[in-house]
Amino acid sequence: MPLINRLAIIGVGLIGGSLALALRRQGMVGEVVGIGRGEANLRRGVELGVIDRYSLDPCEGVRGADLIFIATPVCTIAGIIARIAPFLSPGAIVTDGGSVKEEIVAASEPLMPSGTFFVGGHPIAGTEHSGVEAAFADLYENRRCILTPTPQTDPTALALVSRIWEAAGSQVVLMDVHKHDRVLAAISHLPHMVAYSLVNAVGGYDRFDESILRYSAGGFRDFTRIASSDPVMWRDIALMNREALLEMMDFFADSLSHLRRLVAAGESDGLERFFADSKELRDGID
Amino acid sequence: MPLINRLAIIGVGLIGGSLALALRRQGMVGEVVGIGRGEANLRRGVELGVIDRYSLDPCEGVRGADLIFIATPVCTIAGIIARIAPFLSPGAIVTDGGSVKEEIVAASEPLMPSGTFFVGGHPIAGTEHSGVEAAFADLYENRRCILTPTPQTDPTALALVSRIWEAAGSQVVLMDVHKHDRVLAAISHLPHMVAYSLVNAVGGYDRFDESILRYSAGGFRDFTRIASSDPVMWRDIALMNREALLEMMDFFADSLSHLRRLVAAGESDGLERFFADSKELRDGID
Repeated sequence: MPLINRLAIIGVGLIGGSLALALRRQGMVGEVVGIGRGEANLRRGVELGVIDRYSLDPCEGVRGADLIFIATPVCTIAGIIARIAPFLSPGAIVTDGGSVKEEIVAASEPLMPSGTFFVGGHPIAGTEHSGVEAAFADLYENRRCILTPTPQTDPTALALVSRIWEAAGSQVVLMDVHKHDRVLAAISHLPHMVAYSLVNAVGGYDRFDESILRYSAGGFRDFTRIASSDPVMWRDIALMNREALLEMMDFFADSLSHLRRLVAAGESDGLERFFADSKELRDGID
Repeated sequence: MPLINRLAIIGVGLIGGSLALALRRQGMVGEVVGIGRGEANLRRGVELGVIDRYSLDPCEGVRGADLIFIATPVCTIAGIIARIAPFLSPGAIVTDGGSVKEEIVAASEPLMPSGTFFVGGHPIAGTEHSGVEAAFADLYENRRCILTPTPQTDPTALALVSRIWEAAGSQVVLMDVHKHDRVLAAISHLPHMVAYSLVNAVGGYDRFDESILRYSAGGFRDFTRIASSDPVMWRDIALMNREALLEMMDFFADSLSHLRRLVAAGESDGLERFFADSKELRDGID
């Protein structure tokens, strides 16, 4: 008997679809119901064997599901939970994949009816592709999945959500919401802000009669690839993780100002030390 | 008969060695003399067929050379020209590969004896490897090489240097030194400063009892790869291209401050537009 009789995936794209595929492969789910707004995508999900059937109505789609995974844009998650809450079966566990946790968890926990459970989660995985066509069963293999329990989190629900991510191949890390948002602001949200700003600055440099971006070579292209990410998704992340992101942007701006002072003063030893410290830190994560 | 009877390469590493290999393959050079301070590297250069013979003494090594290519750290180039100037043959052409041009060209031109010629150059190519072992004939294939003639530059010397870079597979772009340094500050030097600062900021974030760098995933690693570059080389570039680099760092800091204000104010439309503008610029260079 599978661990989960009925899994509902709200948002059947790369993230949601890949979890369904990974759990199917492990024989951990009975039926998978896909829920979304784009019927063509859902139909394709059935054809590809990612989901068994679909519903355009989340309230109808979650009926009888043991586990509901919400993999929609961060700003929609709490609203979806508010809508589906009255339709959850007793014992149902809701979890999500949102890359911002403090606001989502704080908004979602009070919405859960008694006898149903919420566990905040964030699988650290992705590719540049999206939609159900991009989903694949190995996406979460050897990745980290951060779960963010609070004092209100049910331990049995947390254990089950941990188990499914482990079954998908991930290492589960527990972290409080506050720390999660700062860690992600630092290692993901800040670099995106920096890349977007850098491309805007270089693209907007107007001392010559041509865009100097045309001279950019491989290094610049690699460094700024993340500035091609979805503007709407990053708008939402920036808005929802505002506090942590501002803290990190200020921390980075201080580091950059310090470096600027070293350059302006022609501080040879200080510059070499700054670059060497950074190289050592960077080499340590490869 | 080859175009160049004797080519002298000062600094037989990735950049110098690869040009020698590319020109040899094209049958454009008679003899190649390697000049450097590390005898083991030069001996290896002979074994690998990159150079025919070597000298540890630049003054001796450049005797009888038609073309001298200096591919040493940026801060050493003008000093080397000062040393070799008295030993250059009549008609000899000296060119370099330094990634900063204004200071090098201004210092070097007055050092050239009458009847010898200097052409500033900068091939936009490289890999993360260094030393003669890393050299390969295709390095410059389909790359840009920027040459930075001044009103003093001899047109015949410029034409010959252009020809050798074209023979190595590069597209030659002529640019004045001032523009070169600003373009390179924008597309290469600034991104390195940003990457070094970002790694230092994230690595130095101390609100938790552990380094949050350990959570960094693929995106952060890709984005910060250039922070593993050689600290001494980047110290020298930062010092030699100080003025242009400071201008670009300020331009970038303004862009980042603007984005910070949008985040702080929760300006949804402004954020989306900022990210979308950047994405459009970035997508345009792929």
